[in-house]
Amino acid sequence: MDMKLISRKILSVIVFALLLVNYGYSQSYELYSPDENVLMTFYIKDGKPAYQLSFGQKFVINESFLGFELVDNQINTSHMDVKSGENRGTSSLCEGFQIKDEPVYSAHDDFWEPVLGEWKSIRNQYNEMIIQLYQENSGRQMNVHFRVFNDGLGFRYEFPQQQNLQHFIIKEECTEFAMAGDHTAWWIPGDYDTQEYKYTESKLSEIKEYISTAVTSNASQQIFSETGVQTSLMMRTEDGLYINLHEAALIEYSTMHLDWKNETQKFISHLTPDALGNKAYLQTPCKSPWRTIIVGDEAADILRSNMTLNLNEPCEFEHTDWIQPVKYIGIWWEMITGKSTWSYSNLASVKLGVTDYSSVTPNGLHAANNVHVREYIDFAAEHGFDAVLVEGWNQGWEDWFDKSKDYVFDFMTAYPDFDVKALNEYAESKNVRLMMHHETSGSVRNYERHMDEAYQFMVDNGYNSVKSGYVGNIIPRGEHHYGQWMVNHYLHAVRKAADYKIMVNAHEAVRPTGLCRSFPNMIGNESARGTEFYAFGGNNPDHTTILPFTRLVGGPMDFTPGIFQMDLTKLNPNNHSRVNSTIAKQLALYVTMYSPLQMAADVIEHYKEHLDAFQFIKDVALDWDDTRVLEAEPGDYITYARKEKGSDNWFVGRTNDEFERYSEISFDFLDNDKKYVAIIYADGKDAHFKQNPASYTINKFKVNSKSKLRQFCAPGGGYAISIICSHDKAETKGLKKL
Amino acid sequence: MDMKLISRKILSVIVFALLLVNYGYSQSYELYSPDENVLMTFYIKDGKPAYQLSFGQKFVINESFLGFELVDNQINTSHMDVKSGENRGTSSLCEGFQIKDEPVYSAHDDFWEPVLGEWKSIRNQYNEMIIQLYQENSGRQMNVHFRVFNDGLGFRYEFPQQQNLQHFIIKEECTEFAMAGDHTAWWIPGDYDTQEYKYTESKLSEIKEYISTAVTSNASQQIFSETGVQTSLMMRTEDGLYINLHEAALIEYSTMHLDWKNETQKFISHLTPDALGNKAYLQTPCKSPWRTIIVGDEAADILRSNMTLNLNEPCEFEHTDWIQPVKYIGIWWEMITGKSTWSYSNLASVKLGVTDYSSVTPNGLHAANNVHVREYIDFAAEHGFDAVLVEGWNQGWEDWFDKSKDYVFDFMTAYPDFDVKALNEYAESKNVRLMMHHETSGSVRNYERHMDEAYQFMVDNGYNSVKSGYVGNIIPRGEHHYGQWMVNHYLHAVRKAADYKIMVNAHEAVRPTGLCRSFPNMIGNESARGTEFYAFGGNNPDHTTILPFTRLVGGPMDFTPGIFQMDLTKLNPNNHSRVNSTIAKQLALYVTMYSPLQMAADVIEHYKEHLDAFQFIKDVALDWDDTRVLEAEPGDYITYARKEKGSDNWFVGRTNDEFERYSEISFDFLDNDKKYVAIIYADGKDAHFKQNPASYTINKFKVNSKSKLRQFCAPGGGYAISIICSHDKAETKGLKKL
Repeated sequence: MDMKLISRKILSVIVFALLLVNYGYSQSYELYSPDENVLMTFYIKDGKPAYQLSFGQKFVINESFLGFELVDNQINTSHMDVKSGENRGTSSLCEGFQIKDEPVYSAHDDFWEPVLGEWKSIRNQYNEMIIQLYQENSGRQMNVHFRVFNDGLGFRYEFPQQQNLQHFIIKEECTEFAMAGDHTAWWIPGDYDTQEYKYTESKLSEIKEYISTAVTSNASQQIFSETGVQTSLMMRTEDGLYINLHEAALIEYSTMHLDWKNETQKFISHLTPDALGNKAYLQTPCKSPWRTIIVGDEAADILRSNMTLNLNEPCEFEHTDWIQPVKYIGIWWEMITGKSTWSYSNLASVKLGVTDYSSVTPNGLHAANNVHVREYIDFAAEHGFDAVLVEGWNQGWEDWFDKSKDYVFDFMTAYPDFDVKALNEYAESKNVRLMMHHETSGSVRNYERHMDEAYQFMVDNGYNSVKSGYVGNIIPRGEHHYGQWMVNHYLHAVRKAADYKIMVNAHEAVRPTGLCRSFPNMIGNESARGTEFYAFGGNNPDHTTILPFTRLVGGPMDFTPGIFQMDLTKLNPNNHSRVNSTIAKQLALYVTMYSPLQMAADVIEHYKEHLDAFQFIKDVALDWDDTRVLEAEPGDYITYARKEKGSDNWFVGRTNDEFERYSEISFDFLDNDKKYVAIIYADGKDAHFKQNPASYTINKFKVNSKSKLRQFCAPGGGYAISIICSHDKAETKGLKKL
Repeated sequence: MDMKLISRKILSVIVFALLLVNYGYSQSYELYSPDENVLMTFYIKDGKPAYQLSFGQKFVINESFLGFELVDNQINTSHMDVKSGENRGTSSLCEGFQIKDEPVYSAHDDFWEPVLGEWKSIRNQYNEMIIQLYQENSGRQMNVHFRVFNDGLGFRYEFPQQQNLQHFIIKEECTEFAMAGDHTAWWIPGDYDTQEYKYTESKLSEIKEYISTAVTSNASQQIFSETGVQTSLMMRTEDGLYINLHEAALIEYSTMHLDWKNETQKFISHLTPDALGNKAYLQTPCKSPWRTIIVGDEAADILRSNMTLNLNEPCEFEHTDWIQPVKYIGIWWEMITGKSTWSYSNLASVKLGVTDYSSVTPNGLHAANNVHVREYIDFAAEHGFDAVLVEGWNQGWEDWFDKSKDYVFDFMTAYPDFDVKALNEYAESKNVRLMMHHETSGSVRNYERHMDEAYQFMVDNGYNSVKSGYVGNIIPRGEHHYGQWMVNHYLHAVRKAADYKIMVNAHEAVRPTGLCRSFPNMIGNESARGTEFYAFGGNNPDHTTILPFTRLVGGPMDFTPGIFQMDLTKLNPNNHSRVNSTIAKQLALYVTMYSPLQMAADVIEHYKEHLDAFQFIKDVALDWDDTRVLEAEPGDYITYARKEKGSDNWFVGRTNDEFERYSEISFDFLDNDKKYVAIIYADGKDAHFKQNPASYTINKFKVNSKSKLRQFCAPGGGYAISIICSHDKAETKGLKKL
């Protein structure tokens, strides 16, 4: 044991010696990470379960209590009163606990291979301690599973099957995360129905001050506290630690938010309620999702962490050959910007099966028409895309939103100008797929009623992937996007899709929590403020330097990058929103925003104007053998290098915030024995996300593992590099060395 | 026009002359019934739409206003705020109205044939007036359709498609029914989740006084007002009118209750809310259900009325040959009484697909087992029954109730001791069907998710009818049994069943409103306090003399009569509840409680003890060419005679309240030219529902159309008669004339 470890152990001994002199403390139980750098300590104080976490010599989580409030005291009554109301009884699973048996310890270390991912193989190494708690007055047991990894802690509650706790309702989870300081945080407001907020960077103590400006309007939203924030929450401490709070394996439970308490410097868990205000309905034996605390000395450690995936179960499917990366274009951005419409007509009200579209006057702006879709199929085929998304193909878009309309879509009936069969046949003839679109408008009973038929319709017509959407308030009314009801629904949709070998890319669904490990056909998610918001008032230039630290901790995002024309008046003279990015940065996003599903989101006319830059989008891989985080600071910049799956090619991406910066990277990730051609797509010297986003340079160099690069990045800019392994001298002939 | 009509017209002229002298009255519009005995008058008073109703010279409905309160003022905003809360805006559709155009009048008179019913052919004769209303300040239109029949009034609201009213939310319907006196009513408490109350007979002014005793406990219930009652509501006036308030064609709307206002002597409509407190979500063009006021000079007129069916749409199905009457026995009463169990084991908690029943210890009380079911199949075959219901056949009954358990049943996986395939094959070999049982436990998302597979499973295994159940609180939580959400679900289940040619008998579903005309595979419903409650604390002896005036106004009830052993301790020594009926009365129920689906509900051992009386259940028809109400007074007695479909046989049933009475009937409904044998199953002289329920006599007589009968009926008793047309002299030989 080296001196560092010894000194840390001494520290912990001192700390707990001090703790234990106080009355009410049980014996404490320590759990170290495999590298012994992370230490979790569990103990009982005055009957309350508590834990602490340190990283090296730094405290990450101060004394924090664990537990639950349940609805009703089901010990004394067999009746389960689900009704809302102030007077319902509660029973506490927060105090009165003692440790039942000695903890169960185990160590785990193995590798697993994701179906699609950032690494070919992922190491899952942790030490585990299971604490078995007993509450004497209720006769109830509750266990806590702690897993300490080299990059942090995951813990979950387990409710064993037992006589005094069978079926129960959670009134609130009372998990605490006591922060060791007033950290800097990148946060979005806690909300039951939207994640599509801009990030605010502030001290934790300033959340309350900034929340009113942080809450911007959305198609559906419900704030619950002036200090509530969402996970994954990214923080930086004064003494240089990076901490990320999130959850893993959110299944049959409601989504956790965090409510900041300034007085105690604690985050308290706040679950998403149902229509009655209850938080979750559980039946023993069962487990909560994992609560995760990822920690690192540098920001890049958070990006490198696979803890979230590791805390999920292995792949549930026996065969996964039908799950493939998808690069796609789509008939989408033109509707988002307001150039054309999803709807076929300008009727204010339609009824499926009643409205006779054959006699309806078209509005002339319907983009999902046979001619236009063929143009996109042609372009996709010419440039090697896998698929073409077409939104607005099906009847019902005239009054789909904000009408609380139950039977809003049937997911099978096309508008008169969209020939499902002919277009799919045409696509197939060009070796391209159409991508299905299922907007639900939040009406999920309606979606589930049609789901089997709709998936079968996809199979029958040659679709193998679906973009689904949950815009607007949920029906059943009173349920929320992130409550247990919907969490159940999203997974139901993914599992059922798997029965039909369909890949799912759900938008407005709950933020992912690593479930793509278990269900790899969950090929993408939006679940954050994506590119579309550039057309709805804008995203901050640093937005994509934060998302990999927050949203992407849970899984891939269908961010839909690749906008080449930042001035939206070119598409719609009335849309004065702007894309706060240079073209070079748009390219970089294909590398920095990991996803096996990537869209080239702009209209094809704009790509035709920049086919040289477009080449990067055509070349970039979607699935990887290796990933390196070269530079990273949340809110400032991120630089990734990734090695293409089954190839020796690498791709580099760098995104910048609103400031001019230089990126300095080494190519030492390359194979020493190999030579490469690097094509650098960079901001022009005069590039600027506002004034001159289309200024870029494209240069080709010879590179090897000793190469280094110091690259200018414009405000709101970045760069992208294709590094193609050169197997032939001719390929590098005449090229300058970098 | 005879003097009676003239005098009535004079009365109405005087009344309206008096009305019109007041400021604020518009012209009034009168609508008479085809026989000119019923008069509806519509007018606008101070901008409020109003109507009145008279029957002969008697007022039925005094001045009553019509209209709605809507959520939010959608005139001034495009945003539809579905959220609950006190501060949401409203807009009124109650006042500020004027008549837009002259009313549209029409007359209708035709006959139609129900697939299954009380009459071979039903006359639908009415005069219609459509009032077109315009609300100037909102620019909105609302029409009211009035149909006056000889037996009363039906009216509904129509919302035409219009610019200023497209998608809207009803906060409350404000339909009034101003009663012309403090009538005697037979009522059950208004409740969002149960109809299974005993009836209270009281003056309208006494509802408030009796409601606390009227509310007895139920598996799910929510009272909303101390003066709230349910429809169909039966009343008798001081001057001898009989009035019934109900609704017809309840589709895509929430169920109406009535809230009595003592001060104004008015009932005000009160719709069932959703989880947010909203009452209905509508999209123009649309119509409300019909509000019905059935009126008659005698109680029997209410029973004879077909207004509810007439106000429903014709049959929706092209082919109906798969819809047949069903007489069945079942493995049911032994569980209801507590002799045996639905569940296979005594586990307190099970999980479908997780609990391994092959290693579970059986409780030895599971009735749905292979041996026992075969006994029932044998008995059904021997005695000519169509089907055997088996409850408790499928996994999940251990913790099905009161646990708010989402995935509670899968409707396909049998317990280890129930062999679906073998039992269905055995049944088929005996020319008997098994009847499927789908208890949902109120978890309707789960039911809908499994519905297609479950129906297909039925088809694959030879089932053609299903008894479904909705016991307990609804999931999605916060929704109610009688809200728009569930109203939609019940019909969804019926329509989807039709796709599989399955007949549905839904228990705990919303009270029917004549929908069996449009969807004749809705072969039965419980939706009231049925026979099961004899085992749960009891029904009053007069219960079945009220139900035909209330619950049955909307459609057939699966009351499950035929209990022969009234002392339940014989089945379960711990069940001290009693069946308040004589055996003879149990037989009568097959005639008085109309249903094309009839169960012989007792255990077969009890039938074996009284095979002579059981013969009536074997003989009685389920579908009819003609029906006559011979005697009727709600709460006292009912005597029906019905002619078997496609036959010359008649069946008579008479049920009594708790008093000894004599029934006096004439057989003049019989064909003058035919001779008949009557088998009279009557109470013994010493019969009494408490002390001596099993005392009965069976006597055979010759009868013809001139025969008369004065028959003793014991307290809680009654009688049943089979009248078999005699085509052969030999059959009547030696029989006494009645």
